[in-house]
Amino acid sequence: MKAGPEPIEILVNQLSKLPGIGRKSAQRLAYHIVSLPEEQVRELAVAVYNGKKNVHFCPVCGNYTVKDPCALCSDATRDPSMICVVRDPRDVAAMERMRDYTGVYHVLHGVISPMDGIGPDQIRIRELLERLADGTVREVVLATNPDIEGEATASYIARLIKPLSVRVTRIAHGVPVGGSLEYTDEVTLLKAFEGRREI
Amino acid sequence: MKAGPEPIEILVNQLSKLPGIGRKSAQRLAYHIVSLPEEQVRELAVAVYNGKKNVHFCPVCGNYTVKDPCALCSDATRDPSMICVVRDPRDVAAMERMRDYTGVYHVLHGVISPMDGIGPDQIRIRELLERLADGTVREVVLATNPDIEGEATASYIARLIKPLSVRVTRIAHGVPVGGSLEYTDEVTLLKAFEGRREI
Repeated sequence: MKAGPEPIEILVNQLSKLPGIGRKSAQRLAYHIVSLPEEQVRELAVAVYNGKKNVHFCPVCGNYTVKDPCALCSDATRDPSMICVVRDPRDVAAMERMRDYTGVYHVLHGVISPMDGIGPDQIRIRELLERLADGTVREVVLATNPDIEGEATASYIARLIKPLSVRVTRIAHGVPVGGSLEYTDEVTLLKAFEGRREI
Repeated sequence: MKAGPEPIEILVNQLSKLPGIGRKSAQRLAYHIVSLPEEQVRELAVAVYNGKKNVHFCPVCGNYTVKDPCALCSDATRDPSMICVVRDPRDVAAMERMRDYTGVYHVLHGVISPMDGIGPDQIRIRELLERLADGTVREVVLATNPDIEGEATASYIARLIKPLSVRVTRIAHGVPVGGSLEYTDEVTLLKAFEGRREI
């Protein structure tokens, strides 16, 4: 299936490697990009390259950063006694959109998944324990996804941390705000029921 | 809404300018791109830039090309006596996917649309008439979209060409293959009925 001259064909192939972008979408995007002014295309290409080139992982929390430590770790207004543990940098972005969390983060860069050959040593659990060594941290909030691997990873970390007399919490599971009971799956409903609170 | 360090934020902004990509998709794409090996990201960035930089419009048909005239116009196996007129380069790609058309193309780069201030002189109609001057072309297939502007443009061009004793045809409208009568709109059904043929 030839979409046009070779540079466009190459662009379509590159774009269709991106997640959620099929061949048809890639073609639409490619033709759109080619129709843009050259300056805008240059900006896009530079943004793609610099997005990768100019960021690295924060040596403290593991989130993407341009400086060491990252903006969140070095922010004096953030509470260093609370660490929120997430799987990926994109989860940090999600938590930050909540605008209500004032602690710091720890990015695991994965979750324990024996099926994929990922054990506790392949993710940043050791680095998390090292951060707990000096006694600053008083609470670790486990915010891995509520799926099998996320739950298993949370339980594993909880077992490691509890002896250190650090409070370990897990984000609540329940009916999403704006969701309806009718369309909520049974497991989520069960979690919501178990997690019920006095009002 | 801050998605991460500045280079990622810039990438998200650039990606969310693309058609059909909202802020959430742009974030997902950006984090995916940043997680790729640097070499792959470079290839993507280069493909974006070269896709624009290395192509221009064929002076004959107006399709994107890397050489003059384009691969289709200079292909000796294509029939120069038949020109298929389309709105955009992407429509050439669509026709080529059909694999059955052996003539050449003429890209109008737009359709007549008084609402948007686009008249016959803003699209490549004059260039089309110039191609008909030497008498090589015996049929012009009007393959603009079956919408108001596409129909109006087709009628306009047909009126101009008919006096030149060149055959002018319009692609058929009808029920799409694999579609069902039940879900076909009335106008399409009417066109399908009008266009009925002896079997």
